[in-house]
Amino acid sequence: MKRGKFITLEGIDGAGKSTQLEKIAAFLRSKGLSAMVTREPGGTPLGEQLRTVLLDKTITMHPATEALLMFASRREHLDKVIVPALAQDKWVISDRFTDASFAYQGGGRGLDNEKLMFLEQWIHGDIQPDLTLYFDVSAELGQQRLNQLNATDRFEQEREDFFQRVRSVYLARAEEYPDRIRCIDASKPLPAVQAEVEEMLENLLLIHE
Amino acid sequence: MKRGKFITLEGIDGAGKSTQLEKIAAFLRSKGLSAMVTREPGGTPLGEQLRTVLLDKTITMHPATEALLMFASRREHLDKVIVPALAQDKWVISDRFTDASFAYQGGGRGLDNEKLMFLEQWIHGDIQPDLTLYFDVSAELGQQRLNQLNATDRFEQEREDFFQRVRSVYLARAEEYPDRIRCIDASKPLPAVQAEVEEMLENLLLIHE
Repeated sequence: MKRGKFITLEGIDGAGKSTQLEKIAAFLRSKGLSAMVTREPGGTPLGEQLRTVLLDKTITMHPATEALLMFASRREHLDKVIVPALAQDKWVISDRFTDASFAYQGGGRGLDNEKLMFLEQWIHGDIQPDLTLYFDVSAELGQQRLNQLNATDRFEQEREDFFQRVRSVYLARAEEYPDRIRCIDASKPLPAVQAEVEEMLENLLLIHE
Repeated sequence: MKRGKFITLEGIDGAGKSTQLEKIAAFLRSKGLSAMVTREPGGTPLGEQLRTVLLDKTITMHPATEALLMFASRREHLDKVIVPALAQDKWVISDRFTDASFAYQGGGRGLDNEKLMFLEQWIHGDIQPDLTLYFDVSAELGQQRLNQLNATDRFEQEREDFFQRVRSVYLARAEEYPDRIRCIDASKPLPAVQAEVEEMLENLLLIHE
């Protein structure tokens, strides 16, 4: 039986990836595929409870706590949503995955890479996204877009230097894993971004056929 | 400035350690010490939220998720409660700590020891309890006592073979760390158990003076 593809969307807050999420699902469905959207942290009842805690800006927590909760949510997400869906030939599009842990907890919060690599290997050593779309914008542009949205969670409320560190890890990972992670200039107008995304999806569809 | 002592209580569900918790605090206070009781999972607002999830018997979760949530709760507990209290010369008595992760997630759920050792080293490599009182009862006696209490959480609802595995890890650790972990026969009548506990506390007090 055919296995679906696992696509993850990454980027700093304000990069516009959430806007792309449903568009990507619609595009895949227009090709006759079964596609589902999900998100991290979250994606399961337990994961959504953890998301509430993780995004609550009235809570302070150690960066290690943040990383452990992210991977706890991820373990459930893989077990109960991602792996079963892929096995049923569904395409899974997740708003964030482990690259976000390296970028946010590693780059943003300064957690050791070694700890994150251990958690990644433990929790999903054998599973990686088939394609990661990294929506790149400067920390400044991300902040400008966030300011228009008003709602700020525990991550969104961080300052520009935090997002600069997050972005630099994303860029480094895109260089390190060029086959998996595709860097998209998300400062361009929406139609141009979307055209680039669809071109990458078309390439993945060719492999799937 | 003097540093308080960190005492942890361990045992399978039904071993009677919660009964001892307040008695130990009262005994230490009667010696003129400042003593506080706390528990795991829990001990902080975030930890208590995680406790609710961890003990909820309507939730299923992967053993790795369980371990990650336990150590997330622990990281906060150390940061916000245990370490500051010890620094103020308070004695901290915690109902469960990392030995419980080895016993429950390792022994009970079958998680690799190597993963637990990594988490322990990461989260509190430099901090260990000064004294761990392990209240030993057979899985059968533990179950009998639990049945009288009626309330069963996600762990308490496990069967006898689960608690046999948990107990065997506790016993093995008590042998491995004889200086830190003291094994108490908790099948004895309460006054006898208490006398044994107080004798061990007296020894610790001598070192503290």
